Amino acid sequence: MRIKATVAYDGTAYYGWQIQLPHLPTIQSEIEKCLETIGRAPVRVHGAGRTDTGVHAYGQIAHFDWVNPLPMERLVLAMNAILPLDIRVLQLERADSQFHARFDAKSKIYLYRIDRNRVYNPFTYRYALHFRHDLDIELLHRCAALILGPHDFAGFQATGTEVVSTVRNMMNVEIQPEFRESPHIPSLLCIRFQADGFLRKMVRFLVGTMLEIASGRRPIEDLQAALQTGDRSKVGIPAGARGLFLEKVFYEA
Amino acid sequence: MRIKATVAYDGTAYYGWQIQLPHLPTIQSEIEKCLETIGRAPVRVHGAGRTDTGVHAYGQIAHFDWVNPLPMERLVLAMNAILPLDIRVLQLERADSQFHARFDAKSKIYLYRIDRNRVYNPFTYRYALHFRHDLDIELLHRCAALILGPHDFAGFQATGTEVVSTVRNMMNVEIQPEFRESPHIPSLLCIRFQADGFLRKMVRFLVGTMLEIASGRRPIEDLQAALQTGDRSKVGIPAGARGLFLEKVFYEA
Repeated sequence: MRIKATVAYDGTAYYGWQIQLPHLPTIQSEIEKCLETIGRAPVRVHGAGRTDTGVHAYGQIAHFDWVNPLPMERLVLAMNAILPLDIRVLQLERADSQFHARFDAKSKIYLYRIDRNRVYNPFTYRYALHFRHDLDIELLHRCAALILGPHDFAGFQATGTEVVSTVRNMMNVEIQPEFRESPHIPSLLCIRFQADGFLRKMVRFLVGTMLEIASGRRPIEDLQAALQTGDRSKVGIPAGARGLFLEKVFYEA
Repeated sequence: MRIKATVAYDGTAYYGWQIQLPHLPTIQSEIEKCLETIGRAPVRVHGAGRTDTGVHAYGQIAHFDWVNPLPMERLVLAMNAILPLDIRVLQLERADSQFHARFDAKSKIYLYRIDRNRVYNPFTYRYALHFRHDLDIELLHRCAALILGPHDFAGFQATGTEVVSTVRNMMNVEIQPEFRESPHIPSLLCIRFQADGFLRKMVRFLVGTMLEIASGRRPIEDLQAALQTGDRSKVGIPAGARGLFLEKVFYEA
């Protein structure tokens, strides 16, 4: 039976989603170890997005094949009882036997959170970039408009990555403050990117470039040029992993 | 010069605010060490609320006397450069030479956060109680109404505490869900208590009792009886420290 899992994790302590060297903890390796403990046989788990070291997820989707007759609800409890506290299985559903978490994904939303307060919030410092420079929000919105639509994002990926095509369709870019109820919980600036796919570190390169532009340290023409030519000298330093979350993965309805 | 400091901290790693045995890390000891490093002389720091082990603060207020002529803004930076990442000085202000953070406080707000989701949110598990039982919110509101006003809270304090009077005036009890923007960030239930003073573990005893009542495991009459007679058998198990925050301290305007 193929199972579709929704997983949330605090990526701070992990070397990303995907299994690397055997001794480095990754989200995938923790979930596989957990399933092997329950099912007493090795299980391979496939994730929709290969989040990098330190990147978080609210709604990572993964699939795996499972023979043990445990009811779904019990399996959720069993997995969460074994998994480390910073990885939680939110939901398990029976999926089509051909379902593939990565190849079937139509689009994904990545969220980037920025703490603009003078002194950072000690409750979110693992979950937001602390950025104290003044930001021209209007410029951020103009950047968002430039990024929208299909583009060759070749300039916005980690070097040494091999992919067939570097064209991705950016379907939506949203900029909004995250509302916080308490007057003593400073609000965070949130940027959400929805695209049909993402290159490695693409969101972090985009956010890094947008922040350099909106803080007056780079002209907005650089973003336009980088999108047109792939010239990496027009691209900013990638923003830190701690602010990045894989928020949602969309499949055919 | 007397200085009034606003301090936020993630209390997870500390044995509360107040200095205990010399080798146990507390918020007060970290701040005093930090000020001694900067000022090269021992400094005594007085906090408004003596938060217990594992309890957090968004707006703890403290005072200390300071002779070093460093401008306030520079001292904030210097302190935050030395303090551990989970303790942040949000603001420093010059105060009246007679100002006392604890004795001058007119009231305080403590916030208690409850994660009611089936699977807890891995980003807030250090900052909320995970409580999966069904809750009758109407009953919570009825509890809040009973607690309101001046009461002898003798039944709602840690045993072995010695205080002159156990009467406190509960000025406000608010119950509301904390709004979370993302559909993938589950909302938390927040209960705020504003009173002219709090006994040791008082909020945690109150919340523990309220949760037992609202989940049908204790009649609401117990709360009424405990407030009238101080009978500890009518009081619930104190709710965990991780959900508790000292949110704000009020002084004479």
